[in-house]
Formats: sequence, C-alpha cells, structure tokens
Amino acid sequence: MSTAYADLKEQAWRANLDIEGLVERTWGNASAADIPAGVMAIKPSGVPYDRLAVDDMAVVSLETGEIVEGRLDPSSDAPTHLALYRAWPDVGAIVHTHSRYAVSWAQAELPIDCLGTTHADHFRGSIPVTRRMRKDEIAEEYERNTGLVIVERFEKGGIDPVEIPAVLVACHGPFVWGGNAAEAVENAIVLETVACMAWRTRLLRPEAGPIDDALRDKHFLRKHGPGAYYGQSRKR
Amino acid sequence: MSTAYADLKEQAWRANLDIEGLVERTWGNASAADIPAGVMAIKPSGVPYDRLAVDDMAVVSLETGEIVEGRLDPSSDAPTHLALYRAWPDVGAIVHTHSRYAVSWAQAELPIDCLGTTHADHFRGSIPVTRRMRKDEIAEEYERNTGLVIVERFEKGGIDPVEIPAVLVACHGPFVWGGNAAEAVENAIVLETVACMAWRTRLLRPEAGPIDDALRDKHFLRKHGPGAYYGQSRKR
Amino acid sequence: MSTAYADLKEQAWRANLDIEGLVERTWGNASAADIPAGVMAIKPSGVPYDRLAVDDMAVVSLETGEIVEGRLDPSSDAPTHLALYRAWPDVGAIVHTHSRYAVSWAQAELPIDCLGTTHADHFRGSIPVTRRMRKDEIAEEYERNTGLVIVERFEKGGIDPVEIPAVLVACHGPFVWGGNAAEAVENAIVLETVACMAWRTRLLRPEAGPIDDALRDKHFLRKHGPGAYYGQSRKR
Amino acid sequence: MSTAYADLKEQAWRANLDIEGLVERTWGNASAADIPAGVMAIKPSGVPYDRLAVDDMAVVSLETGEIVEGRLDPSSDAPTHLALYRAWPDVGAIVHTHSRYAVSWAQAELPIDCLGTTHADHFRGSIPVTRRMRKDEIAEEYERNTGLVIVERFEKGGIDPVEIPAVLVACHGPFVWGGNAAEAVENAIVLETVACMAWRTRLLRPEAGPIDDALRDKHFLRKHGPGAYYGQSRKR
Repeated sequence: MSTAYADLKEQAWRANLDIEGLVERTWGNASAADIPAGVMAIKPSGVPYDRLAVDDMAVVSLETGEIVEGRLDPSSDAPTHLALYRAWPDVGAIVHTHSRYAVSWAQAELPIDCLGTTHADHFRGSIPVTRRMRKDEIAEEYERNTGLVIVERFEKGGIDPVEIPAVLVACHGPFVWGGNAAEAVENAIVLETVACMAWRTRLLRPEAGPIDDALRDKHFLRKHGPGAYYGQSRKR
Repeated sequence: MSTAYADLKEQAWRANLDIEGLVERTWGNASAADIPAGVMAIKPSGVPYDRLAVDDMAVVSLETGEIVEGRLDPSSDAPTHLALYRAWPDVGAIVHTHSRYAVSWAQAELPIDCLGTTHADHFRGSIPVTRRMRKDEIAEEYERNTGLVIVERFEKGGIDPVEIPAVLVACHGPFVWGGNAAEAVENAIVLETVACMAWRTRLLRPEAGPIDDALRDKHFLRKHGPGAYYGQSRKR
Repeated sequence: MSTAYADLKEQAWRANLDIEGLVERTWGNASAADIPAGVMAIKPSGVPYDRLAVDDMAVVSLETGEIVEGRLDPSSDAPTHLALYRAWPDVGAIVHTHSRYAVSWAQAELPIDCLGTTHADHFRGSIPVTRRMRKDEIAEEYERNTGLVIVERFEKGGIDPVEIPAVLVACHGPFVWGGNAAEAVENAIVLETVACMAWRTRLLRPEAGPIDDALRDKHFLRKHGPGAYYGQSRKR
Repeated sequence: MSTAYADLKEQAWRANLDIEGLVERTWGNASAADIPAGVMAIKPSGVPYDRLAVDDMAVVSLETGEIVEGRLDPSSDAPTHLALYRAWPDVGAIVHTHSRYAVSWAQAELPIDCLGTTHADHFRGSIPVTRRMRKDEIAEEYERNTGLVIVERFEKGGIDPVEIPAVLVACHGPFVWGGNAAEAVENAIVLETVACMAWRTRLLRPEAGPIDDALRDKHFLRKHGPGAYYGQSRKR
C-alpha cells in the first residue's frame, strides 16, 4: 500500500509506538514532518496503540492543516503540532505525552531547572513552562493557541528551541521535539527521566539550584556542539 | 452454561479482571448492573483473581439484595454497590479498589483537586471525600451505610455523579463508576493516574490549586459534552 | 529424599520463595515452626533465591538452637526467630525482609499508625518500633538480642502479637509473623503495602492520624474475629 | 577470537550487562582492571547495551591511557576510571551509572548517611559527595579531573575506599567500585537501594540521623571483617 508519504508515515508510526511507555492510555501523539514537502504525518485521534497501523497515520498539510492522505481524523492536538512546525523550521518531529513526572511539574507550573549533568547532556538549561491560557484562547482554536503560547514563551524568553527541545504547557503537560523522530522520542524519554530526578532532588533539598554554566555547557556541547566527542569517532 | 444473566456476568467478570492491576491482593471488586432487569452481577467474596470464573459472579437483586443466581456469596461490599445503583439510575457499573495513590488521598481525607487537563478529561472537578462514618453507622449495616455516606456527599455538595464518577471514602479508598463496565474500569484507572500526578504536584508545590474553569470545561466537554470532537467522527 | 521434616521444610522453602519480591538481594529469610516437634525450618545463610532447594532448609531445635537436620548453616538471623517462637506459642511462621517502605519507617524510627482500613484489615493498630539496641546487646549475641528487644517492645506496650503480627526493628527493618507460613507471607506483603500508603499519606498531610477505633475493629474483626463474615461461608 | 585479555574483557562486558537496570539509556559504564598487567577493559562510548559484544570492550593501558586492544573508542569517562585505579591499588573494577535515586542525592549535593543496617552491611559510613568542580577543571581534561576530585574527597576526608566503595560526584552521579567486577556491580545495586531507602526516610523524618557506630560496625564487619560469619562456613 505504498504512497508518496510511506516513509514519513512509517517514521511517525514508529515514534508513536516508541513513546507508548510515556503516554498514559491514548493520551499522547507523535508527528514527523517533511518540511520541503510541506506535510506532517500524525497519529489519528483516540486510537489505542496496540491497534495502530502505519496507514492509520494522517498526513496533513503544514500550510492549510487539511488532510492530504489518510482515512482517519488526525489527533485533536494536530493544530498544536502545526503551530510549532510553522514557527521553527529546524524541528522535524514532535512528541506530546502525559508522562507522569513531567505532567506533575506542568501542574505545579514550575520550570524544570538544570540540576545535573543528565539534564545538561540533552537540554542546555531550564525546561520552561508556558503562561496559563486566557479564556478567549481556550474558547476558540484552543489547540492552535496552545502552540502559539509555546512559541510566545520561547520568543519572550529568548530561548532557542534547538538547545531546549521541550516545554511544559501549564496545567497540561510536555511537548518535546527534535530534528527527526528518533531525536524527539529520545528527548521525550530523557525529559521524563530528568523530571523524576529533579522532583526527587527538590523534595530532598528545596533550595537545590541549577548547576554552573560551565558544567552545563561542557556536557551539552560534548554531545551536541561542533566539537562533540561523545560516541564513536574512530574508523571501525 | 448459559443463563438469563450470561452477558451481565461476563461484563462483571471482565471488569474484575481489568482492575487487577489496581487492586492489591483480593481487595477490590467490580459489578455491572442491568437496570431494567433489576439486578447486578458482582465478584464473589475473597476469591483470588487468577481463579475467578464467569460463573462465580453472584447475581443480586437491586431491590432486595438477595442472590438471584450463583452459588458463591457476593462481595461483602455488595450493599455499598446496591446503595449507589438505587440512588443513581445513570450508573451502570461500579468498581472498588485499594489502588495505592487514591487510598493515600482517602487516608489523608483530602479531595483530589482538578490540577490539570488529564484530570479534566475525565472528571469535571474535584474528587470529593466523604465524612468519617459514625459509630452507629459502623456497628450496623456498615457496608450499606458506606454507600449512603457517598450519596449524602454528592447530594449535600450538589455534585453530579455523571460528571464526577468517583469518590474517596474517608480512611478507606475509592469507589468509581460509569455508564457501563468499560467506562467504570477506565475511570478507575484514570483516577489512580491523576491521584499520582496530583500527589507529586502537591509535594512539589503545596499551594498548587485547581485549573481555571474554562480550561477544565474545555477538556471535559470536548470528550463528554454534546459537541465532543475527540476521537473519530469521519466515516472510515 | 524424604525426612521427618519434609513438610516443614517444604513450607519454609515456599515461604522463602514467596517473599522474593519483598527482599532485596539475599536480605531476607523465612522460617516455619513445628511447635509440638520443637523445631523450625529456616533459610540457609547467604544462598540466592534462584538456587534455593527444599533440602537446603536448615532444621533447628527451638530449645537448643542446634541444627537437627540439613547440611548448610542456618540464616544468621536464626537466633532472632528462635527468641520469638519461644516467647509466643501462637506464632507458627516468621518472615524477615528488607522491603523498602517498611525499612524506611524503621530507619525513621516511627511506628506505622493505622491510617486506613487496608491496615485495619490485617493489623489491629500501629506497627510498633523497637528501641535502639545497647552497645552490649550488639556486641554479644546480637541476633538473639534483636529477638529479645522485639518481645520487650510487645510486653512493655501491652501489645498482642496475634493482633499485631509485625514489628519494625529500629534502624533495621521488619519482622512479620503468622499462625502458619501462608499467613506470615501474606502479612509481610500487606505490611509493605500499608507502609507505602502510610508514607504517601503522611507526606501529603503530616498530621494525618489513626482511624477511629470503631472502624479499625470493624475491619479487623470482620476478617479475624469470631463473627468474621468476609470470604465464603455458604455451602457451594 | 581469543586474545591476551579475553577474560578481562568478559568480566567488563558482563558487568556492563549486569548494571543495565541501573543505567538510563546508554549513560553508564563498567570497567575491570588487571593490575599486574597494567590494563583495564571498559565499555566503548555510546553503544547500546543490547548490541554490546565482548569484543567491543576497549582495553586501555592504566599508565598511558592508550588503547591496547579493541577497535572502538573507550567510554568518554575512561580517564575518570584511570584516575581511580591509579590512586587505589585495591580497586579491581569500577561502575558508573545514572541510577535515579543516587543521582538525586548527587544533585542535592548531600551525602547519603548510614541510616540503617542495609547500608551498614555494605558501606561503613556515609557515601560522600565531591565538591563542585572549578571552571578550569571543567575546561581541560574534565573526565580526568572528575577522577581527581573523587580521590581528593577521600584523602581530605580520611575515607578508606575499601570501606566506602562509592562516591557521589556533585551535580552528576555515582561512581562505585569493588575488588572485582561482581563486587562493584553488587555495590552499585546496593547503593541505589540504600539511596532510595534514605530518601524515603529523610522525607518522612528530615532529622533522621546515622545509626550508632556499634551497630554500623557490627553489620559491616560480620560481612566484611576478619571475623565475618555471614554466609556459609560449614563444610557441605
């Protein structure tokens, strides 16, 4: 059943399966975008993970939001994904979960500060929280506005979405992204891990603060910077 | 071994198996009611889940509480279930568990406030706690009185059991319900999840309060209201 | 390889396997006693659970503490077990674990109060903590003295070991017992569960206190009293 | 594919697999040293555990840090391991993990005090935390300097690395060791367990302090001292 978007749907489908341990019930979704082609493939709404097939993925136009391919309605969160792809051209995949520790921080409306090197290996600073949404933003185009308050938070805070590929939507939960589907999934898993560690750290010592910038950047850049030396570089 | 209540017993049996992850040991039970027929099928008392057969379900008259079909004693909590079915005609199934996070809130005698959208997707407000039971209510017809204090809590608080399909019995644990067995099980699982998230949120930030009504209703109604748009609506 | 104590060894062996989820590593042991025969069968010292055979059990005289049957040294905690069997003739089996929540209470040197009906269904009041042991009690016959401070705690507190079949040894961990091996294992599992629930309750609300005596006794006695009505009573 | 270091690589490989439950993702590594031969075998950098083969282990000179055998780059933490082997001749294996509870203590920059006998059975006192590293120590030879601040912590504190075979690197996580690979793995697993128990104890009772020295030494020495009597001593 090959289509023009077979690869993209496969990536999105695999990402949705890979986040199954993070989502509760059906509360989560992943999408992968083909920026030059102007489309994203996203999980259909309300379908259980164990029945999800590659061809269930909905392919949606990044520009118009209309369904380009697929017979199922896309996730109701699709407009949030679209708003992020439109604002941030370096983002190639987005993951939304209700993973428990990250949600707990989002419900407390507190950022997850960079308390250790596990965090710094993946995120170059605090994971920010959005402001609460206004009544009018909730009443009309709620899901699209969710994306807009995320973008607003990064713009007002001068935060680079490539260096901090995650956000906590206030009273809701995390959205996480990456250059491709594998990166977005990895970041979502790591976010939940550091959310757990930070929660335990703060309960033990409420005044525990961020690590020094030098240590943070050392860890982030040895993995992500131009001089990265983590992993295999030698010829095998 | 077909009977007049084969379907109902099957529903109740399946619900009892589906809540196994939530109950500790044998401390839990599920029932399903056939309102027009005036009966409920409920788990027998003290039987381990791995030995539970469909025909072990006890079928009990909603009006008299007498056993209509089945050779085993019904759960000792049967009178609690009966009291709820009698008070609330829209309830088609009831689940009682000792799931750990929900019990912790019940033991703290604190309601689980609606701290995020995960909660609002299923419950339109706080999960209430009953008052403690009086000595005389404990001495005689304890299990029936447990049901009556639940109903009292909803009536005095002006709470709609369809919008808030769960309660915490003080110093005891949760009772959860739904229109049918699948809904009641789903609500019981979600209750434990939001009980966990709310517990972690409060430990992180004790003053964390309920989300705005507009956000709460947006989430509850997009799944449960007349204009619900979550899940699949298009023809496949 | 039938012996005079085949049944007793089988019971002790099974109890040791059944507590595997509660012990960490090899830090735990179970024994079963044959009071009329004047012996107990107990786990050998430092043997991993996955290699434990029925005939590895050491049979020890309750009176002299000497090995009556078996080629392996008994658990180094054997003298603690002996002290309890000697003091309490109604005890037929003892379980010692390092289960995490119970140990945390023991390390905090705080009793686990009866905060809910889950607790009251198995223990008729607080799980007590022993006093710290004195230097001389530690220096000589440490394991036997551990048993003696447990017995002292129950005697001074006027606590009935049949109604409260568990104790927390200060800075160490739980010892749990029952009329037979199955009961002792059940009580050990329930102790860890209520230790978890009580821990979460206290973190949520530090002032949460014991439930009313009437509710506690209702739950304890409907399962354990002479008029117990929980479980199956009707002829099948 | 037998080599001069086949046994050593096998030990290191097995240790890396045995710590899989403690590491998150690929964030961890184990090494085993052959002190007389002047080499260690260590996990290669960034290779997932499920694809790790014995021959992927990198054999590195303890003196020069150069690769003696193996076609993959050693873990980027190799210089930390080397610094510890050079300082402490009794250490035969080292394990580094990002196990969650231990990391939470490291992020809180608090030592894990000896709050109970589970701890004392393996560690004769508090697990120390290093000081934060200076900017210049981070900028150049960061991983080697990580090892040096660990050694500094033990020297300044007069701590014996044989009696306390673990440390928390501030804002980072645990390094754990032992006389051989099996001991180092055992200590890493126990460290995470006692980190969990200590965390729960402190949350329940912030002022909970170390156990008496007599009890601590009783437990440590009955397992590790010259008069150890734990485990099997009788001829079978």
